[in-house]
Amino acid sequence: MKGVFVTFEGGEGSGKTTHLKRLAHYLRDLGDEVVETRDPGGTTIGKEIRTLLLSPESAAISDSAELLLYEASRAQLVREVITPAIARGAVVLCDRFTDSTLAYQGFGRGLDLNLIRQLNLFTTGGLAPNLTILLDLNPRIGLERCTRGSRPGLTSRDRLEAEPLSFHQRIREGYLALAREEPERIRVMNAAMSMHEIEAAVRDEVGRLKGSRF
Amino acid sequence: MKGVFVTFEGGEGSGKTTHLKRLAHYLRDLGDEVVETRDPGGTTIGKEIRTLLLSPESAAISDSAELLLYEASRAQLVREVITPAIARGAVVLCDRFTDSTLAYQGFGRGLDLNLIRQLNLFTTGGLAPNLTILLDLNPRIGLERCTRGSRPGLTSRDRLEAEPLSFHQRIREGYLALAREEPERIRVMNAAMSMHEIEAAVRDEVGRLKGSRF
Repeated sequence: MKGVFVTFEGGEGSGKTTHLKRLAHYLRDLGDEVVETRDPGGTTIGKEIRTLLLSPESAAISDSAELLLYEASRAQLVREVITPAIARGAVVLCDRFTDSTLAYQGFGRGLDLNLIRQLNLFTTGGLAPNLTILLDLNPRIGLERCTRGSRPGLTSRDRLEAEPLSFHQRIREGYLALAREEPERIRVMNAAMSMHEIEAAVRDEVGRLKGSRF
Repeated sequence: MKGVFVTFEGGEGSGKTTHLKRLAHYLRDLGDEVVETRDPGGTTIGKEIRTLLLSPESAAISDSAELLLYEASRAQLVREVITPAIARGAVVLCDRFTDSTLAYQGFGRGLDLNLIRQLNLFTTGGLAPNLTILLDLNPRIGLERCTRGSRPGLTSRDRLEAEPLSFHQRIREGYLALAREEPERIRVMNAAMSMHEIEAAVRDEVGRLKGSRF
């Protein structure tokens, strides 16, 4: 038995984290072993890297150092959490993964996409998600949701949210370009739909994926 | 006016840090602006990465995450410290640099040397030391020096020093292989010589380098 690997992607305030948690709850009710994790983060070392990356004191961080820190956290996460969970047949739900690095550091910051793809390959050892839910949203709306401070665990806008709107627009366009390249894996959903509509669409996609595998 | 970039390399307990400090003192007496730094470390972000890397709690860190953390720290150091200092004409003395990653992560841990060279190129933007002092020492002696606890700032053997002797032997061989590839840049010194002999040899090399540049 081999597990399933699903990632959630999208800009700030797109609702990734909420929908990941709802899907986890739903799948557990169906009897699946579900592993919820996030990138960056998800391991002891990854959590320290995450704190470093999102701290406003890291404003001076160079684009290349930022990229390498994201990749370092991912390398640890794949090895320590994701690969073992998939091997034992779990459903792994990951909040952000390789597509985030392409969208944020590649399309957003302008770093070389080929270099990022090479690093992604190195850190994942070639492991790719079976399904990626991309929650697409006008960044103006997404950032507004963030400043309303509705997200748990964050008391103020973090370093990425403090970037200009044009940065977030490039990320959105980048995500959509990635989805056009891999329409089978990356399923685009309109994050302006109602919570229940998105939830149903996510369940449909995951159900189809699981159906195709058993 | 353009500065000079000198790195110190070698295994654990080879005396790099001591000789870097002595050279810095000597050059300041001659009137040079000297910037002493170290890799990993040397910046706010780099210091946090360094702490993470050398902590015994990081024993679970994967080889690829370790490599990427070293590279992230270096990317920040080059941009924030080394490049500006060289541009204003300073002598930059750096305790470890790209050769350490090739020796430790490449020859020591067995990661792909070409990948490391590519990452080194990315993090340095092509900046290479004008001179590298390689303090060559039998690792058995070097590790003994470390456990005697003579180094300031360290109260116990750190994570790298806790690796088996064979790891340190591969690193020594790796360093010597790098020196054979670039004999003009990498000057090998026998770290078992007396403090004063090494000091004189280092001053000779640096004097020759500075002479060739003015």
